[in-house]
Amino acid sequence: MTDRKHRVIHCVRVPDPTNIPRPTIKRLSLYLRELERHESDGRPTVNSRQLGASVGITDAQVRKDLSCFGQFGQPGIGYRVAGLAAEIRRILKVDREWNAIVVGAGNIGRAIMSYPRFGDKGFRIIAAFDAAPGQVGMEAGGCRVLPMEELHGYIREHQVQIAILSVPEHAAQDVATTLIDAGIRGILNFAPVRLDIGDGVEVTSVDVSRSLEQLTYQIAAAEA
Amino acid sequence: MTDRKHRVIHCVRVPDPTNIPRPTIKRLSLYLRELERHESDGRPTVNSRQLGASVGITDAQVRKDLSCFGQFGQPGIGYRVAGLAAEIRRILKVDREWNAIVVGAGNIGRAIMSYPRFGDKGFRIIAAFDAAPGQVGMEAGGCRVLPMEELHGYIREHQVQIAILSVPEHAAQDVATTLIDAGIRGILNFAPVRLDIGDGVEVTSVDVSRSLEQLTYQIAAAEA
Repeated sequence: MTDRKHRVIHCVRVPDPTNIPRPTIKRLSLYLRELERHESDGRPTVNSRQLGASVGITDAQVRKDLSCFGQFGQPGIGYRVAGLAAEIRRILKVDREWNAIVVGAGNIGRAIMSYPRFGDKGFRIIAAFDAAPGQVGMEAGGCRVLPMEELHGYIREHQVQIAILSVPEHAAQDVATTLIDAGIRGILNFAPVRLDIGDGVEVTSVDVSRSLEQLTYQIAAAEA
Repeated sequence: MTDRKHRVIHCVRVPDPTNIPRPTIKRLSLYLRELERHESDGRPTVNSRQLGASVGITDAQVRKDLSCFGQFGQPGIGYRVAGLAAEIRRILKVDREWNAIVVGAGNIGRAIMSYPRFGDKGFRIIAAFDAAPGQVGMEAGGCRVLPMEELHGYIREHQVQIAILSVPEHAAQDVATTLIDAGIRGILNFAPVRLDIGDGVEVTSVDVSRSLEQLTYQIAAAEA
């Protein structure tokens, strides 16, 4: 379901999505957050200086990033907020709905299940799974915890594309193997372990220790 | 407390920590994970090909990354695992102990409090804080939840350097302002909001929606 209202944007070439610098892709999510803020404040346009300031980069970098995907914006006016947001959602493929499950219903899993805003962002968490009998049957955020034995069949039956993996470190690889066997296409991995996966499955990791290490480095660098 | 056992490493120049590419710094944490795996398996050396394979990059990129900080390794032998790990910890400033607090003792906050391995990694979580009277007095991972009114005084008294911010989105900016007033030096921000902070305070954000967007982009790019 692509938003058809963004005709003010002129795409002059078809970009190759495999050839975009990774930092640019990461910034697109940040631009989208800022555009959503503008949308909820009712501001119809934004310029590259404002977008850059929100991310902590120059307006030239914003224009360079967006030029990877085509010709956006109008001189003197800037970008139409709704149109650019729709275009970035299309690029990031969140202009559609993705079926996701949570595997591991501990603290992190429950936090994900309870977060009400994933639905707005294109992610529908339709079930959770846990190996502990005490967790099975529990509900959070309107989402029920099912036994791990049902994981493989559920993924196939409901065509689940994304799994959010929040099991303990020692269980992560075995569960990942099950997910991949069942046909999952992407894993958001909270376990602090590198998953051994084959081709055709994508993994993005959230590693809190690593984020803390980046923070201590920055603190020390700022003092140097 | 610097590890003094890494004399096999020869640092030929003093690097400028403010001038290292951000992707290199991010990879250092990944190299450190792999080195820790080698350490726990009792393997004394590692080469750049093995380190590169563990991160999904070339051996040439590994050597380039590490050369930013000085001359490491020996031809034909590779890197001494213990020495290189100690050096990376020194670079990332996790060769010392950092006092950290959790602010917001919901699901994410409790997951952080309960994770037993931060201590090994140089982070000592010494207290948690929450605004809800029902949470105050609760314990997780040996760490007690204190009332928000005590936050400012506690940071000053215990010289807390890092705050892990896991409060709801609408409260994040006000709490961040309190943290900064009290002298915190770094914030690991789990709230999906851009914090307005002054100079001298560093922020690293963990944004699950953004990670999911990166994942959907990768899934689509792999299919293109």
